[in-house]
Amino acid sequence: MELRNVLVVDPVDGEYVANVRVSGRKIESVEMSQGSPSGLLIPGFVDVHTHGAAGVNSMSMEAGDLEKWERFLYAHGVTFFIPTTVSAGTDEMLRATGIVSDYIKDRPATSVRGIHYEGPYINTRKKGAQNPETIRPSTLNELHGVITDDVMIVTMAPEVEGFFEALEFLKKRDIVVSMGHTDSSFSLIKHAFEAGCDRMTHYPNGMNTLHHREIGCVGAGMILPLKLEMIVDGVHSAPEFINLVYRVKGADSIILVTDSIDATGLSEGLYDLGGLSVTVRGSKATLDDGTIAGSTLVFDDGVRNFRKWTGCSLSELAKVSSYNSLIDLGVRNRGRVKEGYIADLVIMDSEMHVRETILSGKSVFKN
Amino acid sequence: MELRNVLVVDPVDGEYVANVRVSGRKIESVEMSQGSPSGLLIPGFVDVHTHGAAGVNSMSMEAGDLEKWERFLYAHGVTFFIPTTVSAGTDEMLRATGIVSDYIKDRPATSVRGIHYEGPYINTRKKGAQNPETIRPSTLNELHGVITDDVMIVTMAPEVEGFFEALEFLKKRDIVVSMGHTDSSFSLIKHAFEAGCDRMTHYPNGMNTLHHREIGCVGAGMILPLKLEMIVDGVHSAPEFINLVYRVKGADSIILVTDSIDATGLSEGLYDLGGLSVTVRGSKATLDDGTIAGSTLVFDDGVRNFRKWTGCSLSELAKVSSYNSLIDLGVRNRGRVKEGYIADLVIMDSEMHVRETILSGKSVFKN
Repeated sequence: MELRNVLVVDPVDGEYVANVRVSGRKIESVEMSQGSPSGLLIPGFVDVHTHGAAGVNSMSMEAGDLEKWERFLYAHGVTFFIPTTVSAGTDEMLRATGIVSDYIKDRPATSVRGIHYEGPYINTRKKGAQNPETIRPSTLNELHGVITDDVMIVTMAPEVEGFFEALEFLKKRDIVVSMGHTDSSFSLIKHAFEAGCDRMTHYPNGMNTLHHREIGCVGAGMILPLKLEMIVDGVHSAPEFINLVYRVKGADSIILVTDSIDATGLSEGLYDLGGLSVTVRGSKATLDDGTIAGSTLVFDDGVRNFRKWTGCSLSELAKVSSYNSLIDLGVRNRGRVKEGYIADLVIMDSEMHVRETILSGKSVFKN
Repeated sequence: MELRNVLVVDPVDGEYVANVRVSGRKIESVEMSQGSPSGLLIPGFVDVHTHGAAGVNSMSMEAGDLEKWERFLYAHGVTFFIPTTVSAGTDEMLRATGIVSDYIKDRPATSVRGIHYEGPYINTRKKGAQNPETIRPSTLNELHGVITDDVMIVTMAPEVEGFFEALEFLKKRDIVVSMGHTDSSFSLIKHAFEAGCDRMTHYPNGMNTLHHREIGCVGAGMILPLKLEMIVDGVHSAPEFINLVYRVKGADSIILVTDSIDATGLSEGLYDLGGLSVTVRGSKATLDDGTIAGSTLVFDDGVRNFRKWTGCSLSELAKVSSYNSLIDLGVRNRGRVKEGYIADLVIMDSEMHVRETILSGKSVFKN
């Protein structure tokens, strides 16, 4: 496959016009050219926090559903995603993980890359739209049972019993621990950071906010070198807040996620999130009491929003939409438009709409 | 007067060793030298928000008290200060202004430079330690009565009736309007900024805090190019908050103030603030309900705190402790260690303690 005169957007090398040759699963060559660019070529998007889309729900999906889910995401430029659970019993956690693992095993190329446990080891005071009945402290015994090779991220609250033992256990297995659904003080977050936890889940949602005499989780996210997942839908945070975080942290520390639920891409109505009833109206998904319950955001909308609200460069956009997330997970062969990298790519038009999605060197979506 | 081999700290030219010659009221020459510096020479501190010190209270002072007040401040490096009123009736406002004006008129050189009206045109919901009985909207009629040539700053809330007319009225007279004691939305603050109000009073105290869906006053202070007064005593804001604001805004937008009350420099006990009873214990001054009521901070402590909590350079310290404040007020002949500037200077030791204070070329304090 040869892509001639595309505006290459690389998170490290920046933006330049080039001819890009793909051979097999990989990018074979990227050669600067003089032509006027016919489109924009950016690394495929990475969504490490998504509960579902197109009617598929990570907690209730069947074996065949993941194909439907990934096909839906191709249309939005996503070439790497991690189905995310909500707080649940160990059986349900293992059921979701099992389906993901079987699916990955059976396929030579897929955008499904592992699983993210969002809870249940979180703080009920900051439960958001998670079912409080299944929220609990972690134990090493339970972790031994639920942590499989395909678990990539676990979202936990540092103030909940067992956090620091779990952190040690998970770090040894190269699993990312992310602080979320937490009511921690600044000093506890700092302590967790010093113990090796350097990431926050859907910042600043599901955590205490900034106060000038106790800067808390939101302040910690700003002044400590933590990487921050952000849902850039204009619902979870105001555009001005996104702008503020971009100014404070820069593009290197922000990881775009959707936190999308099964209703994403479907019509308005009533849906289910881990046993809780969710109403979707417009771009907002809420519980009966008004609590925001995940999003119906599609990844490319988040990308366009981020660009509009921050004025960032295209190459910064590549950082927040894939590169940062992959580096955080220790993935080194994806996330760049560069010789030798896996050809997970999106071709976009000048308005940043997806024209074509390429997974492992093969076109999987064309508009 | 000649100061040989001092480490000059200039807000613009930075830090270098020099011989500084003062002649009359002015700095005659600053010549780089090779010697090892015997002390640090920084522009005299500017405190544009102080209600009193050493037992003197801006609302109850007598003609002779200003001398006592300024002498107390010399020991803390202050060579320019603006007595600040609290919300009160027009008679009391004019009484304070009259005393200040008479004092200035009578003296060839003084650190008393004008008056700051903090209120009464503020929001009762964010009154802090101001007496709600005297808080009211502004009218042009009232402003015509209370605005004299020596009024330099008026703190007002943009959401209170009359703000925008007052802003226009005051701007025409080159009087600085500062937003404070306010519960404004982000969009109203932005509107006020666009109308020409670019400053906030004792940020982030006396204003609504940051929320990620309505970033409010605190968010506005962070993302709009507003200059921010800050009380850096560790009581009004945590050190981490000061650090955060420094990172977000940089040193060019921060104006150190003390907001000190008459109890400053005196022992613990009961004091009066505009008719409200204030208890001073340790470094904290509070009303009976626990509301923080001004500070007992001395300026040089604030300077040292700021340096410790932000790690800023000495030249940035010169910005936040005098230069920014003076530029904001339109004062162009003070605030630098440079030929031709008024010789308002502080000599400090390497630990940033005041050794000598020079006002208009004359030594007024020596330790």
